[in-house]
Amino acid sequence: MIRITTFRSVPDFAKGLVRDLRVRWALEEAGIPYDVRLIGLEDRESPVYRQEQPFGQVPVIEDGNLVLFETGAILLHIANKTDVLMPSDPQERERAISWMFAALNSVEPWVQNFIILDAFHAGEEWARLRRPGAEEFARKRVGCVSTWLGDKQYLEGDRFTLGDLLMVTVLRNLRHTGMVEEFPNLAAYKARCEARPAFQRAIAAQMALYDAAEAA
Amino acid sequence: MIRITTFRSVPDFAKGLVRDLRVRWALEEAGIPYDVRLIGLEDRESPVYRQEQPFGQVPVIEDGNLVLFETGAILLHIANKTDVLMPSDPQERERAISWMFAALNSVEPWVQNFIILDAFHAGEEWARLRRPGAEEFARKRVGCVSTWLGDKQYLEGDRFTLGDLLMVTVLRNLRHTGMVEEFPNLAAYKARCEARPAFQRAIAAQMALYDAAEAA
Repeated sequence: MIRITTFRSVPDFAKGLVRDLRVRWALEEAGIPYDVRLIGLEDRESPVYRQEQPFGQVPVIEDGNLVLFETGAILLHIANKTDVLMPSDPQERERAISWMFAALNSVEPWVQNFIILDAFHAGEEWARLRRPGAEEFARKRVGCVSTWLGDKQYLEGDRFTLGDLLMVTVLRNLRHTGMVEEFPNLAAYKARCEARPAFQRAIAAQMALYDAAEAA
Repeated sequence: MIRITTFRSVPDFAKGLVRDLRVRWALEEAGIPYDVRLIGLEDRESPVYRQEQPFGQVPVIEDGNLVLFETGAILLHIANKTDVLMPSDPQERERAISWMFAALNSVEPWVQNFIILDAFHAGEEWARLRRPGAEEFARKRVGCVSTWLGDKQYLEGDRFTLGDLLMVTVLRNLRHTGMVEEFPNLAAYKARCEARPAFQRAIAAQMALYDAAEAA
């Protein structure tokens, strides 16, 4: 059985955003059961854990004797086990992979650069000075996604793929900013994806983790 | 034939770093011929080009009637045409894909955040204040790669993969900083990859472009 490694608990601002959500969501879409191994935030620095995840991040998965890190790679691994996450047509599948990389390399870095100012650098002078610029860079990239999306249901048309799954989990990082809501088609797209039963099960499972950690 | 779209010319600091280099390198490794279509920096904002590349970036490739964007996705497309870019063993191939995503999502954003301070924000107060922090974040991520690499030839052992190709092209962005040279095993790894004849042909082809643009 696939085993996901993730954090037992995280600060409030990260709850509902930690990347094991992306893997849980994909597994829920595919109807593939999974186990979870919990680690502490302090394990990020552990040389033993760095042998599994060279950057000390989460998630990692184990599947048999295979250990994989990086959410994008993990999602492509899961996609090979099911026909529900990606189109079967090779060209359509490659287009969906373009969107996976776009979410992670062309959108997420700019979203992150904006949201970390409030999450990690509040009160720092450079962050105060940088905020308008970082916000504008993030808005430009988010706006590109909105423009591309237009009135389509999903990024490549009528079918939900891992490209959408990653894009929506990237956009979710902006939740305290209202930026997605500036683009009504994008807000509707995000809501459409989040309404999927598989997403609802995934987010409930992640949040249940933190409830359990607090109760313990 | 595969056609790469890239910029006719770029500012000096970007020469040798533009991402069509990544695609050229992979095609040279595979011995696959290609054409190049040149666009201007002003085409980034063109609604017509945004239909090919939703963020206005380069490269895009066309291969028959398939249009692909995002370097990571383009490289995976090329890998399907040859057995020299990725291991044939499925598990080893998935590990190499982990490194592709790691280069693009766990290393490049921190490298970018450091180098843009000099390239785009020199003289801005926030950039001056942020520089030590951004440098330290970049150094931590680069250090993770060095620690993982240890005395291995390549990230996953004895075989060069697209994971190495992307990691080296990310590390090249630090060329004006000397940061890679702080980690002797990483500097040797980068030099080992850059010494490959396919890389030499790729970088020569990219630089020839700018020479031609200047002569014109």
